[in-house]
Amino acid sequence: MSDQSTKTHHALKWYAGQCTSAAAVETLAVEEPLEIRLGGRRFTLTMRTPGHDRELAGGFLLAEGFINSGEELGEVRPVLGSRGEPEPNAIDVILRVPAAGLRERLKRNFAISSSCGVCGKTSIESIQRRIAPLTDGLRVPARTILKLPHLMRQAQQVFSATGGLHAAALFSVSPGARPAPAPLTDREKTFLSPLPDRNEGQAEGIQLAVLREDVGRHNAVDKVIGHALIDGWLPLTNHLMMVSGRLSFEIVQKAAAAGIPLLAAVSAPSSLAVELAQEIGMTVAGFVRDAGYNIYTHPERIIT
Amino acid sequence: MSDQSTKTHHALKWYAGQCTSAAAVETLAVEEPLEIRLGGRRFTLTMRTPGHDRELAGGFLLAEGFINSGEELGEVRPVLGSRGEPEPNAIDVILRVPAAGLRERLKRNFAISSSCGVCGKTSIESIQRRIAPLTDGLRVPARTILKLPHLMRQAQQVFSATGGLHAAALFSVSPGARPAPAPLTDREKTFLSPLPDRNEGQAEGIQLAVLREDVGRHNAVDKVIGHALIDGWLPLTNHLMMVSGRLSFEIVQKAAAAGIPLLAAVSAPSSLAVELAQEIGMTVAGFVRDAGYNIYTHPERIIT
Repeated sequence: MSDQSTKTHHALKWYAGQCTSAAAVETLAVEEPLEIRLGGRRFTLTMRTPGHDRELAGGFLLAEGFINSGEELGEVRPVLGSRGEPEPNAIDVILRVPAAGLRERLKRNFAISSSCGVCGKTSIESIQRRIAPLTDGLRVPARTILKLPHLMRQAQQVFSATGGLHAAALFSVSPGARPAPAPLTDREKTFLSPLPDRNEGQAEGIQLAVLREDVGRHNAVDKVIGHALIDGWLPLTNHLMMVSGRLSFEIVQKAAAAGIPLLAAVSAPSSLAVELAQEIGMTVAGFVRDAGYNIYTHPERIIT
Repeated sequence: MSDQSTKTHHALKWYAGQCTSAAAVETLAVEEPLEIRLGGRRFTLTMRTPGHDRELAGGFLLAEGFINSGEELGEVRPVLGSRGEPEPNAIDVILRVPAAGLRERLKRNFAISSSCGVCGKTSIESIQRRIAPLTDGLRVPARTILKLPHLMRQAQQVFSATGGLHAAALFSVSPGARPAPAPLTDREKTFLSPLPDRNEGQAEGIQLAVLREDVGRHNAVDKVIGHALIDGWLPLTNHLMMVSGRLSFEIVQKAAAAGIPLLAAVSAPSSLAVELAQEIGMTVAGFVRDAGYNIYTHPERIIT
């Protein structure tokens, strides 16, 4: 398997007042479109980093309320080109959801803004209407949150020479409920030298379950959650998710659909991300760096 | 006018191994949905920071090929709620484009992936098919690029106490073709203390024309370009744009639709952003920091 997620390109480097290299080789994160079809018909087009497209489709369809489980994802088929070869940037999803059930789900989702206007409040209500309440008993030591940036970076540095990729990482918390780490891909096996210690967090009571990187932060989240969906881990009651960058409404929505009770981000959450988390009972930590962090909602899950 | 773009929220702060504040007041960037209607019918829903919605719609419709000028944007009306009051998060755009012309434009845009598959190459071709070639004679001294982060931060620090906003800034380059700076909004007048010197870049031959901030980087870019569109500055031949964060295909597409010949970003460009810029003749600089930067495409516009 070739490396799909990075490409090299020549660049002219300009540092300290002069041109230091006229043809430096820079590694870029690959961005390519992906067409997702539902039963043969174009459903959506997203710009993503190639790889894990089945996970991406699964996570996306879960967050949008089309499916509730890995079984319902059904079959994800390659789309064939004119010469019968699989298209690299198109997949066709054959859902295993009864037509009546699907219609009902779609009606529920698109009820938003029908009569009461578009606003953050109606957006939150539409999410509440279709996700199951968080019924976890998750408790995480306060110092464990501090370890997340290090644990994420450790897994990330294997991949990203580009500086251009977002990451999402799912950690299992209670040792009893911990899934096995995701099997290494061929690419990881090639690149891992030395192998990162996926168990380093274990002393903190957490373990990295799966990490994905993508040019789009929402894609990285969809891939992580899609992986868990396909492997049958849902709801992710005993898990927490860490994302690079900022935390938007959409990321909280995706985590909520998967039942993740605690979400941490390297940077700031938006107002609507915090409001949604508050309403649905999710703990949100922001500005999570090695030195400290803020807890915006439901601090009861963080124990000292 | 109240401050629409930030909100405060209580947070529990955890630093250096202990809880340092149980109720710190944190400032969050506001994220709210915006429904854009075309002639009364829902066209798209985007999550954005409120404010400058007309600019946002204008920039978005330009980038998508629906309009080519500020005149064609026509009228942007508030949408009225059930009690006759304007909805804060919905606008209705009445385009001033002949129906036949609009059909032709839409056909051209959606020609992508009809027969030849979805891929970066077809994405690039579809953009090339509908944008005018860059015919500028822009030349920028290499050291001017180095000043961009400082000039952008200077204007940004007025606004963002949140750490959660993306920014896009448009600079005019040749003094002859320079538009007047955007008039200050009420909010800027309140917050600017002291007034930032919008002319500081003048010694470098550049001047900040307009800066916008948003929870979405693409929204910040749409607002900046929408402002220029409405004010009749297009094509932005003698301008360059600087964006926070990374540079995606979509951002290059938006800049190309406005005729911007030089695009600079604080972080990395994606592979497809570089490939599109290469094909259409746009200069792309990445990792633009105070110390240096990389030039990925068309370095002929950077003079030493």
